[in-house]
Amino acid sequence: MRTVGSSREATWPAIRKAGIELLYRYGFAAMNLRELAREAGLKGAGSLYNYFGSKEDFLFRIMCEIMDEILVELEENVGPVQGVVERVKAFVEFHIRWHTNRREETFISHMEMRSLPAARYKVYVGLRKKYEAFVVKLIVAGCKSGDFSVADVHVLTQSILSMLTSISNWYHAGGRVSQKRLIEIHQQMVLAMLRSGETHGR
Amino acid sequence: MRTVGSSREATWPAIRKAGIELLYRYGFAAMNLRELAREAGLKGAGSLYNYFGSKEDFLFRIMCEIMDEILVELEENVGPVQGVVERVKAFVEFHIRWHTNRREETFISHMEMRSLPAARYKVYVGLRKKYEAFVVKLIVAGCKSGDFSVADVHVLTQSILSMLTSISNWYHAGGRVSQKRLIEIHQQMVLAMLRSGETHGR
Repeated sequence: MRTVGSSREATWPAIRKAGIELLYRYGFAAMNLRELAREAGLKGAGSLYNYFGSKEDFLFRIMCEIMDEILVELEENVGPVQGVVERVKAFVEFHIRWHTNRREETFISHMEMRSLPAARYKVYVGLRKKYEAFVVKLIVAGCKSGDFSVADVHVLTQSILSMLTSISNWYHAGGRVSQKRLIEIHQQMVLAMLRSGETHGR
Repeated sequence: MRTVGSSREATWPAIRKAGIELLYRYGFAAMNLRELAREAGLKGAGSLYNYFGSKEDFLFRIMCEIMDEILVELEENVGPVQGVVERVKAFVEFHIRWHTNRREETFISHMEMRSLPAARYKVYVGLRKKYEAFVVKLIVAGCKSGDFSVADVHVLTQSILSMLTSISNWYHAGGRVSQKRLIEIHQQMVLAMLRSGETHGR
């Protein structure tokens, strides 16, 4: 793949890839654009400004793109599945696969929320809420159908998402437990959590 | 409280407090010792070297102290409780209270593990493993007594800890759900998770 001199379309993925690595390694406040340009194979930091106006724009673009992608993939993978129990299982599998396969993006998405200024933070949180809304809707549907029983839909949603996301912090491919087994165990646990409540549909 | 000119014992807490805030705000790579000295009420960065040899020593000291404290408080709060179900409930309460009351420490403890060099990382992970071992032992005891049934003790331990720790990311005091209610819901969920397995004692 050409880097220097190639079209904008072709170069952004290289910048993005290098950017994610630097954000992961140093954090937003400590990373610098000169190193980003070098790692992305550009001649100088100046040409980065073809892709974004400032370091802050760069972070915002990366973070929003990650959320856009996961939202599209969520719909593709879980959208077509029928039945609340099967949908939950498909969701758990999708969420674990995505986050364990993309550890750096997962880490940044969480850690660098603090680096977004207020207005952008709000836009970004809006994207996250779309993802959460998918889970809320699924749990509510299961409570209505009588398959699930939960104490508080929103608390359960947050806790299930956090639990599944954080697997990317401690899971290592090739370790004692396979990704497949990990998914099975969490499908089982999440279904147990969704049947742990004393009240319905709240 | 005197800051400048006070004894080492009295000044460290002020440095530590300011340090935790700066680590939380900027991250380790981007924070600087001059600002730390100023925020801690010291005359200059030079006197910081009475407390640690380098910025890296400072991070390591902070992170280890946080773990030492939680280990002592865990033993005090959960150690004396009898019966596996009651012990799990006491543990869930303790863990949620500690982490939601100390959000900055919680964030740093997780995020800055990447900033520790290999040998210190190992020491720090050793402290974390002590905490995890407490939970592993509790789950194993419950499986032996027939109260719990889990698919994999270590996977459950990681996932329960991650779920409970991450509450500190989204919980806000004074919000819709009280801390007390949050604890109840999670006690219920964790017990459901601990009864979700098809096999015993593994």
